[in-house]
This record gives sequence, structure tokens and C-alpha cells, in this order.
Amino acid sequence: MQILVLGGDGYLGWPTALHLSAAGHEVAVCDNFARRGYDEELGVESLVPIGTLAERVRVWSEVSGKTIATYVGDLCDAPFVHKMVREFRPDTIVHYGEQRAAPYSMIDQEHAIYTQTNNVVGNLNVMYAIADTDRDIHLVKLGTMGEYGTPNIDIEEGWFEVAHNGRKDRVLFPKRPGSFYHLSKVHDSHNIEFGCRIWGLRATDLNQGVVYGADTAHTKLDPRLATRFDYDGVFGTVLNRMVIQAVLGHPLTVYGDGSQTRGLINIVDTVECIRLASENPAERGEFRVFNQMTESMSIREIAETIAGEFPGEAAIEHLDNPRVEAEGHYYNVKHSRLEGLGLKPTLLSMTLIDHLFDVVERHKARVDLAAIMPTVRWTETSSELPRTAGELAPAK
Amino acid sequence: MQILVLGGDGYLGWPTALHLSAAGHEVAVCDNFARRGYDEELGVESLVPIGTLAERVRVWSEVSGKTIATYVGDLCDAPFVHKMVREFRPDTIVHYGEQRAAPYSMIDQEHAIYTQTNNVVGNLNVMYAIADTDRDIHLVKLGTMGEYGTPNIDIEEGWFEVAHNGRKDRVLFPKRPGSFYHLSKVHDSHNIEFGCRIWGLRATDLNQGVVYGADTAHTKLDPRLATRFDYDGVFGTVLNRMVIQAVLGHPLTVYGDGSQTRGLINIVDTVECIRLASENPAERGEFRVFNQMTESMSIREIAETIAGEFPGEAAIEHLDNPRVEAEGHYYNVKHSRLEGLGLKPTLLSMTLIDHLFDVVERHKARVDLAAIMPTVRWTETSSELPRTAGELAPAK
Repeated sequence: MQILVLGGDGYLGWPTALHLSAAGHEVAVCDNFARRGYDEELGVESLVPIGTLAERVRVWSEVSGKTIATYVGDLCDAPFVHKMVREFRPDTIVHYGEQRAAPYSMIDQEHAIYTQTNNVVGNLNVMYAIADTDRDIHLVKLGTMGEYGTPNIDIEEGWFEVAHNGRKDRVLFPKRPGSFYHLSKVHDSHNIEFGCRIWGLRATDLNQGVVYGADTAHTKLDPRLATRFDYDGVFGTVLNRMVIQAVLGHPLTVYGDGSQTRGLINIVDTVECIRLASENPAERGEFRVFNQMTESMSIREIAETIAGEFPGEAAIEHLDNPRVEAEGHYYNVKHSRLEGLGLKPTLLSMTLIDHLFDVVERHKARVDLAAIMPTVRWTETSSELPRTAGELAPAK
Repeated sequence: MQILVLGGDGYLGWPTALHLSAAGHEVAVCDNFARRGYDEELGVESLVPIGTLAERVRVWSEVSGKTIATYVGDLCDAPFVHKMVREFRPDTIVHYGEQRAAPYSMIDQEHAIYTQTNNVVGNLNVMYAIADTDRDIHLVKLGTMGEYGTPNIDIEEGWFEVAHNGRKDRVLFPKRPGSFYHLSKVHDSHNIEFGCRIWGLRATDLNQGVVYGADTAHTKLDPRLATRFDYDGVFGTVLNRMVIQAVLGHPLTVYGDGSQTRGLINIVDTVECIRLASENPAERGEFRVFNQMTESMSIREIAETIAGEFPGEAAIEHLDNPRVEAEGHYYNVKHSRLEGLGLKPTLLSMTLIDHLFDVVERHKARVDLAAIMPTVRWTETSSELPRTAGELAPAK
């Protein structure tokens, strides 16, 4: 298959491109390096050093003998998107190319509006490019479990049968997202579902859990193929950030009482889910939704697991929750459809967290401790970010 | 009360401003005249001639002795919105200031993206201005019944109790809107509901039916107070357009078999609903949803009603439906909450459609027949609009 990976320079986009290329697909990646720009803006860096996209693609070609084409440009630039889709003529477009951090979207008004316009407009441009070029192109769109919020009922995969006042229908599962970022994904989902109805697009909308892990079989082949690993309070996701805290002797920071529950997925499962979704496309006109996660854990359980596995001492510290979210809520998510396509989950209990500790140990001199703490508060309309201007303090 | 009406130069914004001013409120209107610009773009005009906003406000002052302040600017201009809200310090913001035609949003990619960014960004700016200035300000936001689509279950007012797998929750009513315009309103609703949760905003989200009628008690007081009356295939809504077709001896154009059903509301009820919602605000943190409509009718029933009331001959013609929508669907909408606040509905059967025929008769020389037919097709990604370049052909 011809597969175009949008946002293919990112934490997940790059390992996905490698996984698809290794599986024999003809892969192109598109990126505008916005993610690298956010690092510059916030004065932080990936814990693991990463090469340029050009270098990565060159090394992959040396290592595997396979070619990955690159398109550098902005998805908000409609003519660029049209030209790319017409030229590469993908069978599948995997769309990671959006601003993806909830705290980033909550920094202030400007970041909220940037996140929603960047994500919604980019996605509309992709939809129009498909509709104009070939409506058979399968759109595999990354969303998030955070779109659902925490309803007091089981969370189904996108659609559910509802009985109401003696009548029935199959309707979209109601969503109540927790940040302007999560909202942008809900907007995308509604737009794509409409595209399936009016243009007969075929789409898979993936509501992904929190991803953890530092590498996949292919990023490990050469240090220059490494993917980014974020630990800062804005882009660092919970499990990865806590592993770093443990290695540095910093308390594992739990927001609130830690009873809030998240869906989780290992990075090696993410890339496999994308392969499975791509190789088993949605039907024409179908808006197919998968919950792309393999297990649920509370934030406290995640902290306790890491503290328990860590060979040294690891304290747990509770901070005021900077987010507005329910604690102690019901959370039961259906996620059987990707397993139905053949996913064999790698659960946290089976993962060598040791390996993660090693990765961090190797790079801990690069950590800027000041960047770890949360600085963005949901109830405020603007936040003071610590601007470390790219100067990374050495760890003690 | 101090009430700021955003989009206060439009079809409904202007009569609402008059109604609130006449009711004794201190009113300001804001507009950027985008609606007048769409007329220029499409080469069409309001059937009823309208004055400039400056003239309207001056005449209202002559007629009533009351002052309406004006703010001219774009809601997408964040500093403008902040300054206006800080300066006027409203108790209530009534938000009509969005692109409001489904066909306009479906003209092509550029119009779809304009509609979603204009509406979503403008609304986010209003939310941030409230959050920064005074979280007690009540946001009364205009949405549309078209947000819901046509589910096979009763449509509740925004929220509903759902039982699923033996558990219960009160959740947002699932929506499945029918155009990129309708989608922009769904995006707004999700953003506002989030603002209520994180900032404790108080908001009333009004899902309004199709509005019909040419004037209210106050717009009738002087011809220079008239509001616009649109009949073109892009901005003209179904009932108003059919009245014009009848008067001109043009067949009443029904899209598809006409069994698709719409919620309707008379313009005199619209302005009264806004007064009732403003004078009975939502609680702090409450996202309150009202279905602002008074009756449901199929398109065919509307055509038959108009043909039946028209003193001459009026034929009904079925056109291929340019939209993608269900025909022959279930449609049962709950709409008791505004009546609970005191609305006394003016139903179509009680309306003097005669009066509407008179209004059209008086201005029929201004009609451009070529502008009436639908030109925007939902399944296409771009449409050829008849560009009459502002030249209005005289009616035969």
C-alpha cells in the first residue's frame, strides 16, 4: 500500500512510518516541524536526542534498504495538501499532524485558538484533498480517549445503541472533553463523520489512550532512528514523566488524589494498531471508531507501579490538580475492535520498565528539572511558563 | 440590564436589539457587516431595503427616545472583543455574530473553512473576554436545531438521561449535523459547555428552528427600522423563500420529496425568547440548552400551507435535493423550557401569511429570480454560483 503519514516527524508518527515501511508499504511522511518549534518556544528538549528528518530517512535507507519520501509543509496550507495528495496518491492517510498537548492548548487564549484552528483547518484540508483526489483514500485519524471525558456509563467505540422513550437509534457516543485540545479532536471527529455521509469518505477515527514507552523494534536499530521522549509539564505524558522523576530521585508527581483513570497503550502497540487499521480499511462511507488503548489504570496505580519497579527509592507526591477533571469517577472502556483485527496487547505488567529506566539513565544529564512541574492551570485564562530559553540544567 | 447583541445588524440581531431596548434594557450592538458583504459577494440583496446601522440607530432614537450604542468590529479580533466587553460591561451577551447559512458553508473548501474558523474563533474570543472580565456575564448563544440532525429518538433539550448496560448518566444529546455551518455550531456548543465547567461561565445555548416572518412590532414602526428579508438560494430560508415564489408566480421549490421535517419559529417569538432567556439567566457554571422552536412541519406541509393561503395560483415543484439529508425520518422535538419561562407561541396557523404576501408584493420589483434556485450541492466540493454582480433583474 501507499501510506502517507502526516506528522511523521513526531513521537508516534516517526515510529509508525518505520513500522509501515518495514512491513513492506510504500511510505511518505509529511511534517512542518511544529513540534520541534514548540520545544524552542517552551525552552525544553526531548530527553532522547533526535536527528533531523532528513538524517532519519537517510539512516533508515542505510539500515533497511527502504525509501521513505518526505513532504515538508503545513496542513493549513490547502494547495500544499492538495498537491501532496495528488502527487503521492496514497491508499491510506495516517493523520497525526496536529498539536497534541492538552496543557499547551490551555496556556492562554492564543494557544487555545491556535490549537483549534491548526487542528480543525488542517483536518478539513485533508478531507477536501481526499474528496477532490480520490474518495477511496482511507483516512486513519488520531484522536484521544480524552474526547469522551468520564461518563458514568460504559464508553463504547464511538457509536452506541440508545433506547429512549420507547424508541431506539445508533448514535454517536456523547463526548465531554477536558481541554481545548481534546475539544479540537471532537470537532475533527464530527467533521469527518459528516464527510463520510456527504462524500462517502472512508475513515477510521482512533481514540487513543496515553502512550508510554521510548522505542519500537525499528527505532532501536540505530541511535539516529530514535524517536522523541518528552518529560516536560506541557508535552510529557504521565507514565514517561514519572519514569524520569524516579531516575532523577524526584518525587513522582500525582495531580490531585490520583484516582482519575486513564486508558493506556504501549508505543509498540500504537504502531501495530495503525498497521492493522490501514491494512483493514473502513468501508466507503463508513465512520469507524476504535478505542486504541489496551488497559486502564488510575494515575495513582501508575505511580505505584513505577515506584515498585524502580530499583532505588521513589516517593510519591500529590500536587493540587491543575486540570479541572473528575476524580474517583467510573471508567469502563470497550476496546475490543483492534484486538478483533489481530492486536496482541503488550500490557504494562509485561513491559520491561527496566528498559525505560535505562533509557532515562543514559540521558539524564539532559533533564531540566524546572520543566517537569505543571505550570498551566485550567481555571486561569493565562499561565506564566518557566522560560528556560533552551538552557538545560544538568541533573545533580 | 446591560445587554450586548453581537451580530446586531442582522436579520434577527437587529429586531432583537429593538425588542430588548423597548423592554427597557440598556442595549449595545456589535457588527462587522459581514452579512452585507456576503450579499455583495453573491450579487444579491435583501428583498426589503434596509438602512445603514448608523441610520437605524438614529431612527430608533427618534422613534423611541432610547439609545443603542454601536461597536463596529470583528469578533475574530481578540483585542477588540476584550475592549468592548470591558467597556460596555454587559450583564448579558446575546451572540448572533456568526456566518449562519448552511449552503454558504458548502460552496467550497474556502467557504467551509471560513465558516468554521470565523464562528469558532469568534465564539472563543467572546468566551475568553467573559472569563477575563467578569464570569458572571451570561452568554446567550444562538445555535440551530440542525445541530441534532434527525435521530430516530425524541430530541431533548441539549442534555438527556441515558441508561446503558445497567448504569445511568445525564449526558449531552448526541448530534449529527447536516453542513459545515451546522458543525461550527456543534463545535461552539462543546467549547461553551467546557467553559462552564472550567471557568464557571453561565451560558444558554439556543438551538433555534427555521425562522420565518418579515417584521416585529418595532421594525414596523418606521420603514427605516426594517430588518433584512432574504430569499436567495444561499441565505433565504425555506418559508420566506416560498412566500416570494408564490407572489412572483414561480413554483414553490421543494427539495426532494419534501417529507424532511423542520422546527419552525416566528421572528416575533425569536426576539421574545431572547428577552426571556436574558431576564432569566443560567446559573453560574450551568450550560443550559433550550430548543428555540414552536412547531414542526415537513417542507411539503409548509409549501402546501403557503399555496393554500395564497390568493392566486401556486404550483409546487420538486427539485433534486441538493443536500444530503434523510427524508421520511422520525422527528419529535422537546421544546417546553422557553414556554416554561413564559413564551406564548405564535404558530404558523395563527400568523397572517397575508401580511407576508403584502410585504413581498410591495418589493417584488427587487427580486432576482435567478438567485432563488439552489446552486450549492452537498456532494460536490465546489459549486458554480450564478454571479449576478449586484444587478437585480426586474420581475416579470
